[in-house]
Amino acid sequence: MNRKFISTGHLIDSGILSSILNLIIEEGADYEIIRFTVGKVNSEESEIEIELIAKTAQQLETLTSKLIQQGCYEKSAAEAAFIPAVKNRCAPEPFYSTTNHRTEVYINGSWRKVEHQRMDAAIIRTDKVLECRKIRDIKEDDPVLTNADAVRIFPPARERQKDSFGFMSGEVSSERATKNAVNRIAEGLKTMKKNGEKVVVVAGPVVIHTGGAAALAALIDKGYVTGLLAGNALAVHDLESEFYGTSLGIDLQSGRPTHEGHKNHMRAINRIYHHGSIEKAIENGDLKTGLMHTVIKTGIPYCLAGSIRDDGPLPETENDMIAAQQKYSEIIRDASAVLMLSTMLHSIGTGNMLPSWVKTVCVDINPAVVTKLADRGSAQAIGIVSDVGLFLNLLMEKLN
Amino acid sequence: MNRKFISTGHLIDSGILSSILNLIIEEGADYEIIRFTVGKVNSEESEIEIELIAKTAQQLETLTSKLIQQGCYEKSAAEAAFIPAVKNRCAPEPFYSTTNHRTEVYINGSWRKVEHQRMDAAIIRTDKVLECRKIRDIKEDDPVLTNADAVRIFPPARERQKDSFGFMSGEVSSERATKNAVNRIAEGLKTMKKNGEKVVVVAGPVVIHTGGAAALAALIDKGYVTGLLAGNALAVHDLESEFYGTSLGIDLQSGRPTHEGHKNHMRAINRIYHHGSIEKAIENGDLKTGLMHTVIKTGIPYCLAGSIRDDGPLPETENDMIAAQQKYSEIIRDASAVLMLSTMLHSIGTGNMLPSWVKTVCVDINPAVVTKLADRGSAQAIGIVSDVGLFLNLLMEKLN
Amino acid sequence: MNRKFISTGHLIDSGILSSILNLIIEEGADYEIIRFTVGKVNSEESEIEIELIAKTAQQLETLTSKLIQQGCYEKSAAEAAFIPAVKNRCAPEPFYSTTNHRTEVYINGSWRKVEHQRMDAAIIRTDKVLECRKIRDIKEDDPVLTNADAVRIFPPARERQKDSFGFMSGEVSSERATKNAVNRIAEGLKTMKKNGEKVVVVAGPVVIHTGGAAALAALIDKGYVTGLLAGNALAVHDLESEFYGTSLGIDLQSGRPTHEGHKNHMRAINRIYHHGSIEKAIENGDLKTGLMHTVIKTGIPYCLAGSIRDDGPLPETENDMIAAQQKYSEIIRDASAVLMLSTMLHSIGTGNMLPSWVKTVCVDINPAVVTKLADRGSAQAIGIVSDVGLFLNLLMEKLN
Amino acid sequence: MNRKFISTGHLIDSGILSSILNLIIEEGADYEIIRFTVGKVNSEESEIEIELIAKTAQQLETLTSKLIQQGCYEKSAAEAAFIPAVKNRCAPEPFYSTTNHRTEVYINGSWRKVEHQRMDAAIIRTDKVLECRKIRDIKEDDPVLTNADAVRIFPPARERQKDSFGFMSGEVSSERATKNAVNRIAEGLKTMKKNGEKVVVVAGPVVIHTGGAAALAALIDKGYVTGLLAGNALAVHDLESEFYGTSLGIDLQSGRPTHEGHKNHMRAINRIYHHGSIEKAIENGDLKTGLMHTVIKTGIPYCLAGSIRDDGPLPETENDMIAAQQKYSEIIRDASAVLMLSTMLHSIGTGNMLPSWVKTVCVDINPAVVTKLADRGSAQAIGIVSDVGLFLNLLMEKLN
Repeated sequence: MNRKFISTGHLIDSGILSSILNLIIEEGADYEIIRFTVGKVNSEESEIEIELIAKTAQQLETLTSKLIQQGCYEKSAAEAAFIPAVKNRCAPEPFYSTTNHRTEVYINGSWRKVEHQRMDAAIIRTDKVLECRKIRDIKEDDPVLTNADAVRIFPPARERQKDSFGFMSGEVSSERATKNAVNRIAEGLKTMKKNGEKVVVVAGPVVIHTGGAAALAALIDKGYVTGLLAGNALAVHDLESEFYGTSLGIDLQSGRPTHEGHKNHMRAINRIYHHGSIEKAIENGDLKTGLMHTVIKTGIPYCLAGSIRDDGPLPETENDMIAAQQKYSEIIRDASAVLMLSTMLHSIGTGNMLPSWVKTVCVDINPAVVTKLADRGSAQAIGIVSDVGLFLNLLMEKLN
Repeated sequence: MNRKFISTGHLIDSGILSSILNLIIEEGADYEIIRFTVGKVNSEESEIEIELIAKTAQQLETLTSKLIQQGCYEKSAAEAAFIPAVKNRCAPEPFYSTTNHRTEVYINGSWRKVEHQRMDAAIIRTDKVLECRKIRDIKEDDPVLTNADAVRIFPPARERQKDSFGFMSGEVSSERATKNAVNRIAEGLKTMKKNGEKVVVVAGPVVIHTGGAAALAALIDKGYVTGLLAGNALAVHDLESEFYGTSLGIDLQSGRPTHEGHKNHMRAINRIYHHGSIEKAIENGDLKTGLMHTVIKTGIPYCLAGSIRDDGPLPETENDMIAAQQKYSEIIRDASAVLMLSTMLHSIGTGNMLPSWVKTVCVDINPAVVTKLADRGSAQAIGIVSDVGLFLNLLMEKLN
Repeated sequence: MNRKFISTGHLIDSGILSSILNLIIEEGADYEIIRFTVGKVNSEESEIEIELIAKTAQQLETLTSKLIQQGCYEKSAAEAAFIPAVKNRCAPEPFYSTTNHRTEVYINGSWRKVEHQRMDAAIIRTDKVLECRKIRDIKEDDPVLTNADAVRIFPPARERQKDSFGFMSGEVSSERATKNAVNRIAEGLKTMKKNGEKVVVVAGPVVIHTGGAAALAALIDKGYVTGLLAGNALAVHDLESEFYGTSLGIDLQSGRPTHEGHKNHMRAINRIYHHGSIEKAIENGDLKTGLMHTVIKTGIPYCLAGSIRDDGPLPETENDMIAAQQKYSEIIRDASAVLMLSTMLHSIGTGNMLPSWVKTVCVDINPAVVTKLADRGSAQAIGIVSDVGLFLNLLMEKLN
Repeated sequence: MNRKFISTGHLIDSGILSSILNLIIEEGADYEIIRFTVGKVNSEESEIEIELIAKTAQQLETLTSKLIQQGCYEKSAAEAAFIPAVKNRCAPEPFYSTTNHRTEVYINGSWRKVEHQRMDAAIIRTDKVLECRKIRDIKEDDPVLTNADAVRIFPPARERQKDSFGFMSGEVSSERATKNAVNRIAEGLKTMKKNGEKVVVVAGPVVIHTGGAAALAALIDKGYVTGLLAGNALAVHDLESEFYGTSLGIDLQSGRPTHEGHKNHMRAINRIYHHGSIEKAIENGDLKTGLMHTVIKTGIPYCLAGSIRDDGPLPETENDMIAAQQKYSEIIRDASAVLMLSTMLHSIGTGNMLPSWVKTVCVDINPAVVTKLADRGSAQAIGIVSDVGLFLNLLMEKLN
């Protein structure tokens, strides 16, 4: 029950070869290394040919699937087999379920790239391209890829140089000086702005509560941030603070609860309802400053996704989750970097859609959230355990 | 700039009188106690008449509103003033925004009770009743209550006896023996079942990951739990574990990752898509056991609310947040108790709808979540910092 | 089984009266209010005379003890009874165990104040004074107070005005703008400095790791901080950073691990061993800047308490815990405020010694730590959930 | 500026080779692989000879030191150079500072093993052996190893088979079913007991508060646990619960605060003071059950290390930190496994002394603590995020 695989790239320093051999051993199978050409110097890639020796047919299939995820492909790659979906939003079983890594499919004797890479999707063949498609978006008769042995993927190697933010990947910066991280992110944002790259922020209402709204608005205004993903609450508390000077009833100047404050977020929502929308409130001259004002005036794409815990919700909030995911996914398309600021819900939602090569920075005061997001996120994830309000203000200072 | 207020009840031991005097002092105003009849023994209520001495008209209004929230009412209560809404989902400004406490409105010289109590709503007068209504549900011409001085509310006094779960209210049981809390909750659930009371569970997917699904299903099957509020993920991972023995790819027997596991939740969703729904999968004999199976077979009301982070989502998931909030709110109506199990998102959503007199128990491994939920929740909130899987298994053992 | 108690003060707004009545009810006893003179305006105190109606003698004793802790005293206060200790470090049983509140004892028909107030001590009568003494410090024949019914204590009332830091007591400032808290603390420190009051900092090594050392040194240098309590690690990492530019091996400029870094803290310790002490390293001109340098050069009192996890330890570290507690206790004597910065161990140690009227500010990134310290600490405790490095830098900026 | 290194072992699947190449690249140096003999099948080891190409002499030294930590050794290993210490507790500078991995030193042309392996120590040559010695224990004239190029170390390879607890190393079991982990640990403990291996528990007072004391006592009584490391508080609260039924004043049966409870820990300490020691209290028949009773009656070695936050402390508590570290270090010598139960302080203290090949299990309700301990600890560390009281009770059930 043997099968031969090939893997090419920076196999050793990326840790991929370790993963491959460990997978085989942990599963109780064995291997023989047929051929191993080692990149003798740093710039050279290695190539390995390895024979998997499985005890059962099922073990062989399981390991094949797993090895493919690690970037191996079968030496004698199979031709891609597509089966038409029998009805809408039904993939044939089994079907190939994607990772968030760069993926190619073996068709007519050559490897072809897959578009719109994201995890947990099927691969569909259209007239022109191969693309990732969520199962719910599959239409009857869509040709769905079924066999993993026609796939090869490219897990991101550990970066050979410092990344755009000057971090080594995978760092979680806990118990470290936040100002160093801020300096490097500021440098990265400057470069990305100069290059015209897209930088999307995912932000929770804690950004408002902790006094980070003005700094985030300034980042948008100056062109460092080109898209915003959030929920209803971010906008509600931004409006509350613009209209009444409070966030969740806490006075943002004094940091003290105001006695009428607990009603202010409802009054803010009602005030927008009277205008009809946030946009109208701006047009009518009632909303003149603030984060949402900046978002709408600069015209950057944004989406406020609804949730079960929303008050209001605001007219601009997208209450249909299918539509909200669609909008999120359009906004992050081709982004170079994503900053996830104190919102686990929206950050995980965004992470689900991101290809693994997009740089992500997660800032949260809870180290468990940072670890969770950094683990799920792209291979480029950087975690910063800090106070998001202070973080944003420092970042803005560096970019002035 | 004076105004007289009356407050009646267990003013001293409830701490309400302290709150009233502190509010006045903190705001920089002053008071004179006109009359104070103290309940000499425990069973007697006290009554106080107090004159608020404000420095400005605005201070007077602010404090009036705040004192009313503490259960004071004006000595010469004003008649309720209703103003018709000028258009759909627009309250007049100012309007009276509700708390989650029992509320009465002074109409035609007498105090009338408000129905469907919840926080952050307006009070509408219909032909027959006064009721809480979310601003978004206000229709043009609905008469909306505008003046707080026609309102009196009844914040729950600290329980004079042990509550149904045998806890004093407000306890957060961190660094304590969880088995004691389990014993008391088990006793409470037995009593509630005997009395035919409604008990609703709000549950996150951690219930499945930590091995609590079978215990929760048994609680439902035996009639201790009569409603379920959750998100898409709870059902996805329950199905994943029923179909493939894993939860988020972790084998539930061995606790180890299975190599195909990461795809199992997508395969589970696809399998349900083929059937058309979870219900059909049961009808078709494909889904024979598990939490969702029990929920559907017993016919208890449930709602899976969608979110931005959902995979699938499952056909039974309600993706429209307005509709999901509506369903949640129907399911918790008249509930005697709510158990919130390891989901901050859905628990806060539920807490927003609950009147303050419903007993709530929050179980989470993160003390910050427990504190947050217990603070927001009803006055009856009990917090338990523990491992939800072990908690549910212990609870089930006690109820066998 | 009745007993009469008197309580005087701001009983209502302080919440003390609520606590008293609730204690009685929760214990299953009953009460009758004999007399209640209410302070009609804010400046007047109230006085209550209450009869406790207990069911058993044990209940009577239990509640008597508890009521005394709440500031009640018996109407017919008993004379203090002192029993000589039978041997060193042995209190008679039962003995009166202190709280951290201001305490008086009824001797020869009048109330006398207790010195060196702290919790969990016995009260000893010496020739001249009554004082709190730890049980371990009791000597044979010391007269130890045994009866609680000769004691009255004064739990701090909720502050009637803003405290020195402009906070209302008991605030935990989570999800709030840290810069507001910083502004208020800066104002408080200015005032205290002007008044010549003592301000002690308790600091953990995270202060160094997060880049706060220079700011803390500046606070000391400028006279805002007049004492330092810490452990061995704070000094080790300060020295490591001064000698080698790293903290726990992380380069403090770049925020990156340095490859030799893991050894740097041992090299720093060894370097001090060569000098003989930190003080000698300064004399010898080897240590020229940094936090410990500032501490020693300014001559403020400090103590580095040893612990089971120490490397080294440094020569200045006090490795005997009895001696370390003694030094801590001398340094905080008569302090007006204590800032507890990211160290639960030393903060709890300090809190154990503090009278309840000392203002404390706890800064930590973990909300559970902040809540725990604020709960244990004085009634003046303020909690700030933030990044301690950024916090200290902001505070220093405000004080420049 | 080149230097050749050799590394032998399971280089690929252990991830060591990845680490080696990454170190070189991250530091900005380069490499050439001279020779690479790949273990073709799982049972064969690999051997690599690699040439490090550094840009500067300092880079060469830095990388040499770092590569040695990864288990490389120089092709032409240098002879060990020992320099006599100039005075007590002073290592020469530079000196070789140890890791916690198995270490050998090149002397007279052959590799010799180092005894008493622990991290952050110097290596001393005595008449008979090479051994790790803390700097503070160095005596004048002790020959101290100075050169890293005479050292080779053996970082533990990722376990090729399941370890004694059936876990793969490095697992942190968050959001997983704790009962699976318990089953595996129970199996491991059975095997170790059969083999007569040492298993040491490090325990914090939360073990008592959460109702785990009886289970831990039973584990000791049945011979599964053969040593106990703790602080003063574990014993204080165990005694409090044995004498008065409370832990920190909380009744362990009902989970409710008892009104006299806050004094009970002081009363327990005083009661022991009257006896003279815990041991005497047992002899005198006053202490008849409980965790400390079991510890002392079974005669397993234990140490209660003092700390700055201690009440009492108890007579058995070791208040000198140098002595306490010494005792800890003797108790864990040759242990096969260490269970760290809800105490970060003592767990880190213990971790500092442990060689990297000792299996450790960390149980804590705080995922950040578990991650921190698992990271610092041995390569065998397993983390379990759960409720320690429930964990111990489940574990005991499995071992009955």
